[in-house]
Amino acid sequence: MTRSREDFESRLRRIGAERYHDKHPFHHLLHGGGCTPDQVRAWVINRYYYQSRIPLKDAAFMSRVEDPALRRAWRSRIEDHDGTADNEGGIRRWLRLAEAVGLDPDYVASTRGVLPATRFAVDAYVRFVRDKTLLEAVAASLTELFAPKIHAERIEGLLKNYAFANDASLSYFRNRLKEAPKDVAFGLAWVLDHADTDEKQDAAAAALEFKTDVLWAQLDALHSAYVDPARIPPGAWQPGEGLALRAAS
Amino acid sequence: MTRSREDFESRLRRIGAERYHDKHPFHHLLHGGGCTPDQVRAWVINRYYYQSRIPLKDAAFMSRVEDPALRRAWRSRIEDHDGTADNEGGIRRWLRLAEAVGLDPDYVASTRGVLPATRFAVDAYVRFVRDKTLLEAVAASLTELFAPKIHAERIEGLLKNYAFANDASLSYFRNRLKEAPKDVAFGLAWVLDHADTDEKQDAAAAALEFKTDVLWAQLDALHSAYVDPARIPPGAWQPGEGLALRAAS
Repeated sequence: MTRSREDFESRLRRIGAERYHDKHPFHHLLHGGGCTPDQVRAWVINRYYYQSRIPLKDAAFMSRVEDPALRRAWRSRIEDHDGTADNEGGIRRWLRLAEAVGLDPDYVASTRGVLPATRFAVDAYVRFVRDKTLLEAVAASLTELFAPKIHAERIEGLLKNYAFANDASLSYFRNRLKEAPKDVAFGLAWVLDHADTDEKQDAAAAALEFKTDVLWAQLDALHSAYVDPARIPPGAWQPGEGLALRAAS
Repeated sequence: MTRSREDFESRLRRIGAERYHDKHPFHHLLHGGGCTPDQVRAWVINRYYYQSRIPLKDAAFMSRVEDPALRRAWRSRIEDHDGTADNEGGIRRWLRLAEAVGLDPDYVASTRGVLPATRFAVDAYVRFVRDKTLLEAVAASLTELFAPKIHAERIEGLLKNYAFANDASLSYFRNRLKEAPKDVAFGLAWVLDHADTDEKQDAAAAALEFKTDVLWAQLDALHSAYVDPARIPPGAWQPGEGLALRAAS
């Protein structure tokens, strides 16, 4: 017998409570003001790779959706990241954060210096969405359920602890606070509607776990390379590289 | 002007000298006898995932080769791992190593508990071979150029430092010492023959760098999870899980 809609939603939310990357020590360090400028830069460089691949992921999803209504609902995610006539978009906003921390935005956008482990994890997510069922692809996006809390904590923690933080440099996160709830309300309802057998519920839960692994692995790689034991893999960004000509204030 | 065959071979060998994972501190720990039994187990569990995917990678390669002679030459790689009537094959031999270190081989073969970062890196390699040019796929296999040295060091280090090590448990590595040189002689000659423009030489060198990243990222993840800072990601193997009913001697 298929578990109830409410039980299934609780199961999905429990995955976030147990595995979402708000529990990773790198985020505690970042939000608490414990990161050096270079550690913040390493985070900005590597997280850019994730941001830059999200619209590819969403396009891969839409390329497999035959229902125009679903494609239309999904399309706003690409607009949110890539921009529109009225909205510069999340990727540009992230590059403004990069500038604010003293990085050359062209260097960041080149994705040179991104940790190989970041690439492997993020690319695994794009492939997952390309190859798995639509239900699994939507379920994997539901980490957005847990994002508003971490974005709010981040804005507060960065503003309090770092000179680079202000309304302009943190506009990416403020915008995500507006955008993510609409996306995730749609995605959650879609998953609850479509996961109508035990097998589909299991597949959706496994997809959400997979996505928490993708996020966690990125922070593990960042922490290992730049915090503890601070062993930078061959070819990855070295502090001092990719700086803007004028240093950040 | 395309650089000479000798210069290009030197360039490939330099990539190994600079980036191959024999330089990773986990290997120094392992070969020097500094690993706890659980750290050895974590290595055996995660490295199994890599072994288990190599024949998939080779099949993906062969699925794109139209020349029967090249397929025939390549096929022995799959036989070496999966076995033949006369040869149990590398995967079975790896599972005997798993038993020797006290693990349940069925647990190891299930690949439950493998670090997500290991999966992401290894899967990236299989995809690379599936999606890139044949030249890049063969070039990526040339890390085998650097493997005999590490296998010889490993056999010597493990025999000297760990009670589980003997001819039976280490047969995987002894066999690779015989198998790898034949594979890599073929692969190196093929790459040197086919990389006949600067652009192709650059692509082949980048493919070999990519492969060193795949290997390095696996050890970084292992080191981070089980050595320093010993933070095991959600869902990954915990010491005590997957043990054989009879502990290893």
